Amino acid sequence: MTYCVAVMLDAGMVFASDSRTNAGVDQIATFRKMHVIAQGGERLITILSSGNLSMTQSAINLLEHQSRSGGSAITVANATSMFEIAELIGNVLREVRRRDGPYPQQNNIETSASFVVGGQIRGEPQRLFHIYSEGNFIEATSETPYFQMGESKYGKPVIDRVIERGTQLTEAAKCLLVSFDSTMRSNISVGLPIDLLIARRDACDAELNYRIEPGEPYFHDLRERWSAALRAAHAGIPRPPYRNIR
Amino acid sequence: MTYCVAVMLDAGMVFASDSRTNAGVDQIATFRKMHVIAQGGERLITILSSGNLSMTQSAINLLEHQSRSGGSAITVANATSMFEIAELIGNVLREVRRRDGPYPQQNNIETSASFVVGGQIRGEPQRLFHIYSEGNFIEATSETPYFQMGESKYGKPVIDRVIERGTQLTEAAKCLLVSFDSTMRSNISVGLPIDLLIARRDACDAELNYRIEPGEPYFHDLRERWSAALRAAHAGIPRPPYRNIR
Repeated sequence: MTYCVAVMLDAGMVFASDSRTNAGVDQIATFRKMHVIAQGGERLITILSSGNLSMTQSAINLLEHQSRSGGSAITVANATSMFEIAELIGNVLREVRRRDGPYPQQNNIETSASFVVGGQIRGEPQRLFHIYSEGNFIEATSETPYFQMGESKYGKPVIDRVIERGTQLTEAAKCLLVSFDSTMRSNISVGLPIDLLIARRDACDAELNYRIEPGEPYFHDLRERWSAALRAAHAGIPRPPYRNIR
Repeated sequence: MTYCVAVMLDAGMVFASDSRTNAGVDQIATFRKMHVIAQGGERLITILSSGNLSMTQSAINLLEHQSRSGGSAITVANATSMFEIAELIGNVLREVRRRDGPYPQQNNIETSASFVVGGQIRGEPQRLFHIYSEGNFIEATSETPYFQMGESKYGKPVIDRVIERGTQLTEAAKCLLVSFDSTMRSNISVGLPIDLLIARRDACDAELNYRIEPGEPYFHDLRERWSAALRAAHAGIPRPPYRNIR
């Protein structure tokens, strides 16, 4: 399984992804699901991936290969808008699934894969897209400023309650870590390390690009504090006053 | 969709179920998903239902019909153990799905259905079972003292953090209402009224059997307080101290 979130705020964007992959419960490994394309101060593009690992890795490799090959084609390195980049990712995903998909499907192996991509090209606005397994995509708007992928339900209530367009970037990062805590407590197939990236609006450079490893003190403390605070919040609510009516 | 929870504590049991059913988003109705079989002080059996409504209604009707018919057969009214009652429910569910299941399935209509049943027969211990769509079942134990059905993920984190075997019954009832709040905020196909039943150990009678209707003041207040407390809990956690390492 996987858990990835990206939020788009007035102040900028925050991305977070876990790094646990599993093929059955007896085959668990760590793979980075956050891919960053940075041209210092000129463009910063963050791609989160979810689904069949061979499909997402091949798609990312194809994107990188296109960038290096140069020529006149549009690539993530020279595209002039985030919309073009979302199209590019949809297209490579379609290509990979067309080429490799039919073989795993013969053995009923799921080949679906999806991406969240967000970022900014100097002179353009920050934009955030969710690319579906079929290569089509949607864009985040001010009404719905975030996208989740993978095991999204456990960690959604806290995001819905805390995140607004005006939320500060470090507050939003904290909220995403609480969301990851709720998810990791309930689904053991979502796990550390967590990759966390903060992209301030118009900087076109990562303000933070950090990996939270197991045992990292702040995240450990956050988990303890959140548990204690939830129990205290529950204890602080009066008990139901209901009486039986027979 | 549906959300049902039952917990088994040292002090007794608490059951809660929503009452929204839907066949597509344009066909929404209210049906009680909690069914109580009570013989004042002698036996109290609470059944929560989930899944295809025609299947669960037919199964409950068949159980009631068997009880009224009398004779020498084992029924929910004369069974001598909760285990027998779990078997009875599994059997009627199999019978209904064998009889009615193939017709909806011709139109790819989902016929799965499941039950949570808990209660006590005087002289026997309180026991709690989860009956699967195929009629087999599992029993709650002290390690896992609760069962959820339907839209279970949004409301699970708070239960995992608050409920222990030693939790008092009204505290547990409060926790289930918080769990319903989280679920109803995220899934509009789970909705009021909520049926809430408290069965104190060895009473064999409902200490509370209450329906929470829309606009009910305590539940409204609980939702407001929980939202405010969650936001305060989030605000009380220090911000991430991470700095970029370039």
